[in-house]
Amino acid sequence: MNTTERIPNIFPIDPNLSPTQQPKPLHNRWHPDIPPIAQVKVNSVFRVDMIDFTGGQIKNDDNAEDVKSININKNHHLSGPFSVCDENGKPAKPGDLLVVELCDLGALPGHEWGYTGIFDRENGGGFLTDHFPNAAKAIWDLEGVYASSRHIPGVRFAGNIHPGLIGTAPSKELLEIWNERERKLLEEDIEKMSLAAVLHHRPMAMLPEPKEALLGAISRKSAEFQRIAKEAARTIPGRENGGNCDIKNLTRGSRIYLPVFVEGANFSMGDLHFSQGDGEVSFCGAIEMSGFAIMRCQIIRNGMDKYLSPMGPTKLHVNPIFEVSPLEPRYSEFLVFEGVSVDEYGKQYYMDASVAYKRAVLNCIYYFTKFGYTPEQVYLLLSCCPCEGRISGIVDVPNACATLAVPTAIFDMDVRPKVATQHVHVKVMKVSLPQCTYDGKLPTFPRKSQNDFE
Amino acid sequence: MNTTERIPNIFPIDPNLSPTQQPKPLHNRWHPDIPPIAQVKVNSVFRVDMIDFTGGQIKNDDNAEDVKSININKNHHLSGPFSVCDENGKPAKPGDLLVVELCDLGALPGHEWGYTGIFDRENGGGFLTDHFPNAAKAIWDLEGVYASSRHIPGVRFAGNIHPGLIGTAPSKELLEIWNERERKLLEEDIEKMSLAAVLHHRPMAMLPEPKEALLGAISRKSAEFQRIAKEAARTIPGRENGGNCDIKNLTRGSRIYLPVFVEGANFSMGDLHFSQGDGEVSFCGAIEMSGFAIMRCQIIRNGMDKYLSPMGPTKLHVNPIFEVSPLEPRYSEFLVFEGVSVDEYGKQYYMDASVAYKRAVLNCIYYFTKFGYTPEQVYLLLSCCPCEGRISGIVDVPNACATLAVPTAIFDMDVRPKVATQHVHVKVMKVSLPQCTYDGKLPTFPRKSQNDFE
Amino acid sequence: MNTTERIPNIFPIDPNLSPTQQPKPLHNRWHPDIPPIAQVKVNSVFRVDMIDFTGGQIKNDDNAEDVKSININKNHHLSGPFSVCDENGKPAKPGDLLVVELCDLGALPGHEWGYTGIFDRENGGGFLTDHFPNAAKAIWDLEGVYASSRHIPGVRFAGNIHPGLIGTAPSKELLEIWNERERKLLEEDIEKMSLAAVLHHRPMAMLPEPKEALLGAISRKSAEFQRIAKEAARTIPGRENGGNCDIKNLTRGSRIYLPVFVEGANFSMGDLHFSQGDGEVSFCGAIEMSGFAIMRCQIIRNGMDKYLSPMGPTKLHVNPIFEVSPLEPRYSEFLVFEGVSVDEYGKQYYMDASVAYKRAVLNCIYYFTKFGYTPEQVYLLLSCCPCEGRISGIVDVPNACATLAVPTAIFDMDVRPKVATQHVHVKVMKVSLPQCTYDGKLPTFPRKSQNDFE
Amino acid sequence: MNTTERIPNIFPIDPNLSPTQQPKPLHNRWHPDIPPIAQVKVNSVFRVDMIDFTGGQIKNDDNAEDVKSININKNHHLSGPFSVCDENGKPAKPGDLLVVELCDLGALPGHEWGYTGIFDRENGGGFLTDHFPNAAKAIWDLEGVYASSRHIPGVRFAGNIHPGLIGTAPSKELLEIWNERERKLLEEDIEKMSLAAVLHHRPMAMLPEPKEALLGAISRKSAEFQRIAKEAARTIPGRENGGNCDIKNLTRGSRIYLPVFVEGANFSMGDLHFSQGDGEVSFCGAIEMSGFAIMRCQIIRNGMDKYLSPMGPTKLHVNPIFEVSPLEPRYSEFLVFEGVSVDEYGKQYYMDASVAYKRAVLNCIYYFTKFGYTPEQVYLLLSCCPCEGRISGIVDVPNACATLAVPTAIFDMDVRPKVATQHVHVKVMKVSLPQCTYDGKLPTFPRKSQNDFE
Repeated sequence: MNTTERIPNIFPIDPNLSPTQQPKPLHNRWHPDIPPIAQVKVNSVFRVDMIDFTGGQIKNDDNAEDVKSININKNHHLSGPFSVCDENGKPAKPGDLLVVELCDLGALPGHEWGYTGIFDRENGGGFLTDHFPNAAKAIWDLEGVYASSRHIPGVRFAGNIHPGLIGTAPSKELLEIWNERERKLLEEDIEKMSLAAVLHHRPMAMLPEPKEALLGAISRKSAEFQRIAKEAARTIPGRENGGNCDIKNLTRGSRIYLPVFVEGANFSMGDLHFSQGDGEVSFCGAIEMSGFAIMRCQIIRNGMDKYLSPMGPTKLHVNPIFEVSPLEPRYSEFLVFEGVSVDEYGKQYYMDASVAYKRAVLNCIYYFTKFGYTPEQVYLLLSCCPCEGRISGIVDVPNACATLAVPTAIFDMDVRPKVATQHVHVKVMKVSLPQCTYDGKLPTFPRKSQNDFE
Repeated sequence: MNTTERIPNIFPIDPNLSPTQQPKPLHNRWHPDIPPIAQVKVNSVFRVDMIDFTGGQIKNDDNAEDVKSININKNHHLSGPFSVCDENGKPAKPGDLLVVELCDLGALPGHEWGYTGIFDRENGGGFLTDHFPNAAKAIWDLEGVYASSRHIPGVRFAGNIHPGLIGTAPSKELLEIWNERERKLLEEDIEKMSLAAVLHHRPMAMLPEPKEALLGAISRKSAEFQRIAKEAARTIPGRENGGNCDIKNLTRGSRIYLPVFVEGANFSMGDLHFSQGDGEVSFCGAIEMSGFAIMRCQIIRNGMDKYLSPMGPTKLHVNPIFEVSPLEPRYSEFLVFEGVSVDEYGKQYYMDASVAYKRAVLNCIYYFTKFGYTPEQVYLLLSCCPCEGRISGIVDVPNACATLAVPTAIFDMDVRPKVATQHVHVKVMKVSLPQCTYDGKLPTFPRKSQNDFE
Repeated sequence: MNTTERIPNIFPIDPNLSPTQQPKPLHNRWHPDIPPIAQVKVNSVFRVDMIDFTGGQIKNDDNAEDVKSININKNHHLSGPFSVCDENGKPAKPGDLLVVELCDLGALPGHEWGYTGIFDRENGGGFLTDHFPNAAKAIWDLEGVYASSRHIPGVRFAGNIHPGLIGTAPSKELLEIWNERERKLLEEDIEKMSLAAVLHHRPMAMLPEPKEALLGAISRKSAEFQRIAKEAARTIPGRENGGNCDIKNLTRGSRIYLPVFVEGANFSMGDLHFSQGDGEVSFCGAIEMSGFAIMRCQIIRNGMDKYLSPMGPTKLHVNPIFEVSPLEPRYSEFLVFEGVSVDEYGKQYYMDASVAYKRAVLNCIYYFTKFGYTPEQVYLLLSCCPCEGRISGIVDVPNACATLAVPTAIFDMDVRPKVATQHVHVKVMKVSLPQCTYDGKLPTFPRKSQNDFE
Repeated sequence: MNTTERIPNIFPIDPNLSPTQQPKPLHNRWHPDIPPIAQVKVNSVFRVDMIDFTGGQIKNDDNAEDVKSININKNHHLSGPFSVCDENGKPAKPGDLLVVELCDLGALPGHEWGYTGIFDRENGGGFLTDHFPNAAKAIWDLEGVYASSRHIPGVRFAGNIHPGLIGTAPSKELLEIWNERERKLLEEDIEKMSLAAVLHHRPMAMLPEPKEALLGAISRKSAEFQRIAKEAARTIPGRENGGNCDIKNLTRGSRIYLPVFVEGANFSMGDLHFSQGDGEVSFCGAIEMSGFAIMRCQIIRNGMDKYLSPMGPTKLHVNPIFEVSPLEPRYSEFLVFEGVSVDEYGKQYYMDASVAYKRAVLNCIYYFTKFGYTPEQVYLLLSCCPCEGRISGIVDVPNACATLAVPTAIFDMDVRPKVATQHVHVKVMKVSLPQCTYDGKLPTFPRKSQNDFE
């Protein structure tokens, strides 16, 4: 026999269909009572398809209205849950570690494209929503391992394709912890929170919301649907179970160790990214796509005790570990932008790495406008190109120092600073970005118009 | 003639002498009126020696009393300032960019050692001072490009030698901005600050302090000494002028673009690190050392306008840019620890990358205690080994996600998680760390004793 | 519309069918008169499938008889030729450079496996055929980006998937040059050739051979078939047109610049390798597979004049250029074996890099037998794992020095030499390799039996 | 105490003095009877200085007469031999492996320069002596980790500093093997040798030569001097003991495992290179320099049996192994030139990697002349920049395929091929190279004049 058995696709997706028409039911909430859709045995190789995180709300066109009016309550559309058992059929148990090797990731034939968006300030916003309140988007063509965009000329880069979201089901106890601590956050005097965060005017937390809930195999008409939908955690933040951590390094060839909280582990995944920069700063910021994953699982019995931290009041309070892939894109020349925890208005923060990173990102955006890009184009580019965001110094009171390293090889032109005065920088061809008007009150500072950048 | 001219050492140091006995006067404050100690011309190659940041307060021995009782007001002991002029003798001007290429960095013959310390909670503390209130230290032998320590067995790594501190002199205007905004910070209701920070019980900011001030060529007896000493900014935090950014990637072969605020640029440097991990978490956390730098400068006229951001109310409010070296240590296998912005006690923060990184570091510390290390040893190791701290996700409300990537090749043994149950992890030989008793009130949670880690 | 157009597959393959049953006719010879099977326009993205180089002669089983009795006259089974035209429909012209970007490469669903073989000494042999006269093979499972083999336990590595063969059609003039110079080689007194080569007892050259010729769209019954088959060059060696260069670095993301000798360029490709080590030492030495390529072409008008060398008596006498991919597998720790141009019997050669490399490979084979592998297993492994073969010194008379660098991370165990005497090297589980008896005269030296290695 | 003991310099060099005036006696031959000059204990860190391989024959000037008239019989001037003993004072024994860790390497203060030369065809020649019969040289300024040359404008690169030569003393038996096999080579009908080699008109081998012999501590007047000088092997080629392998990857941070043939190991070193390309093609082709090494030794008892190959008639017939450094310069973008074993005159060779590499080098030289360099400048550049020479395919009869990969980042300008016709390549400023007239008969083909390249 000349062939091996075809790798089984345990969760097929048709990106031409809506989320509710898919061959297998999707879910967009975390809850221990969402039943597994399939079981996989350790060491077997299997395939899972994923629809893009919005379930097809964003189109491959030149208009950003779809981004502006996106229904965030519907996200993320997940594949799974999948329960995992060992060679003898015994399921993973709470306290075990689930090892998931991401053997391969890719696009679905005919759907070799993706998008990067800026959410409207009133509908999700992003890391720099005070500077970029308007919805905008860029479409990327996926040419094998490379991405290029008709909306951001002059760049092309190798993707670090990865699932933005992969995680195990929470136990009932863990789910309650999540809901309680996030509810408390809303009750906090937001003035006590990091002021940088407040400035964003972004949502503080997304609490359970039955509207638009999808619960996999649980029928919308069933008695328990309403109960579960009211309890189920939203999928926006990463948490103890992994989840939407948006870690660009979980690319093909990497291996993640996930804590197990329920029998079978019941892991889910989605939010596939063709490429992302550290921070995914524009929120809808990676190159979002539909696609597939080839995977293989293993179980480390009692691995949570062995390898994860029990520090704190509960043993549930852990985070995943992973190993990077030898196939991460290899760029060696970087132009690096520094930022410290003084915001762009001169306000001093205390050791706040988020503020420091915001400054590094703003510094970088300004820099690349000098080469002919609009600020929005750079904001989108930094969200999705393989740039590295680092916490460089976190102890020198009162300033945290963060750095943003951009690989210079992704640009067609030489973007390094030049000493020689005669040097004339090439500028990119002007291309207009699909963009929407922001209806709220625009910040008059720091940027009144495009001209402030030039 | 068979030889080139010896590279001129414009700032020699003798590490056997005290800071005040050095051939050239040191300074430990930022002020525009500290006069340059030497002038360098662009494109010429020159050498600058640096004493360790404490000026010799820490000894190569097995006792941490010196770390515990360190006089922080004396730090950092800087070499410079150096003014820079072009080929025609015209000095750098405010608004220019100063390009400093770090051609080489190394130890001084006979002083091939360094130290990493944990500052006492009452005397500086560190990123995890709530967990590690006690002073401790580790001594490192510098064997060419490698470091190893008799206090932390089983590890050896290639250094990313760099100046923790390099920066230009502030203008009077910029200096006033610094002093004002940091003074304001102390006046803030600290309850409004990031709670994680407050929890540290660390100093909020270090304001101008004439005590122990060193002002270079300005005589202590001169009339202006007191004035300058009262105005001069402390060197602890990185700021617009670069300064103590503690960026491990500024290693030999890199090139930094510094904004110029005063005529001549008047740059200073010091705090030489043989190696550092991102964050320098234990504060005295790199491998601190004395040593030399070989450098070359260039000037980009009006470079601040060309390349740095004028966003915000003042054009002074910028940060440096740099290019990384092709000689950064090349590790390709990393074990990565995740953390989200929920602290180890279960408290939810809002998009706080500092809290997320704290969790990642704690998770990593716990992990390596499983291989026989004490938590203090791992804390020191993560401060100084070439580990990478990344802001992976900064938009998924309410959780920032940070990751800490540790190169596995620095360990003698295989430290990856193992699936096979029969696998017995090798443990390192127990070695005691120079450590001091903490006299303050110890936190009873999360760690009552060493046993909590085992 | 939510989808892009499906990338057109201009040369589909069904690996379950024999070479002559494929949807498009294959060819296995080089000749200018083989007509193009399809035309592609510059900048368009298209797909080409490739059958494994033997056209399905090797099976996924545990028996090496198929390798032993392989019909070498049938190889390689190529996809194409493809003619290339510019945006205006004007074809590539002789003298142009054809740029082929390898956007992606992969396995065909259901055929995620490959093989590595040792050819029998009497039927092709390999680089070390004097040491390994017997046919053998190893089957590899392709698990996404990784390969592992039931026949070579304890190793797993990321593939550098690439077409072993890609090239443009020769002009009539170039074809004649090939045939003449290779014919002359057979007429040479082989004693004048590199003795190392002669020792191999391998074929000196493979001249045109009508038997088993496949000529694409040229019907076997047509009048011109016999003429072309008699003239057409064999595909074994790489030549001016690229061809079977077996360069492992032409992996996904790379870009090759091929000289154009006939109108349209008419490029062909095949011999897909999931992974290969430099040298592909066992001849059938890569992980051979069927699969697909996603590509994009460009034309550099008059590029041969611009970029390729006219040195020598004819302007035809050139070689391709390429750019490596940022996605090459990234290994950073290597164990390196040296060899000089003295053969293993003590015979001195003059500056012969082939002999030096043979020694490096033999030294490496010996080394890994110490970890429990059979010599045949290591020979196969070095043929297909991502090891680097370097010409380190080529001027120090009389010894060329070659090195073979093996990435240590591909092994489950630590394979570095150990200083500590108490260290016990783990050995791999003994696994038998599909192997055939060699019917010819076995060399009694240097290896009489397996025991010589232990 | 604040200091460690100064690392002992067991072999100081003063590059202002001639070889015979040095503090310690040099040697330039291999012989077991040359006594060790010092003993080192395992695990101790020590320093060894090295004079440049010619012992100061080449000057830092703009005239190539010194290269033309160099006395090759004097080379290489070596530091050592050094005997090695274990912690208990027991010396390394034949059959052991000597581990030498190259902890650091650098220039001597005041001597931060080096040179790259083309030897005259009648006085050593080089890999391309048939194309470049004239002596020439380029001087390099060593600016920390970087090199640049007033003779080759537009390039600057990080050095891979390494000893071109490091090896253990041969036993009497091994020395006799060397002398016999190299003597035989001269007796061979050179027509039987690789014709490519013969074409070079280079010396076939350098036999023992008492003239200019330096034998370390053996007095020139002593009775045994003449005996030893007559027997002692020349240092030009690398051999079983390591020696002049010219492996660029033995850079700071690497570790070499050398076979031990005599009690104490008695290793020697020299021929320090600031940087070299694979092959060191112009023979005097690295950036040759004086400098220092910081090292540490270990002994693996019976390591030859454990790790090195006994294949062949004598157990002496082995080669060293080494581990690469994590500090190798990290370039990730390469432009790669292919070559096959057909020489530039169209002559077909059989599987000759040396011929294939020669073609790749010629192709590359031609390419870069298009950017304004003279062929001699490129030849020198490829000899010393960190380019990679690979044996890509060694089995596809009759053509070996070699590749030469040049890192594009070493050039100031973008040197990649350009598709757009409007693109105008920048050319480097014309700079004349120190060059000598060749007095012999110049080859009329392939290059009659500089114009052939333009």
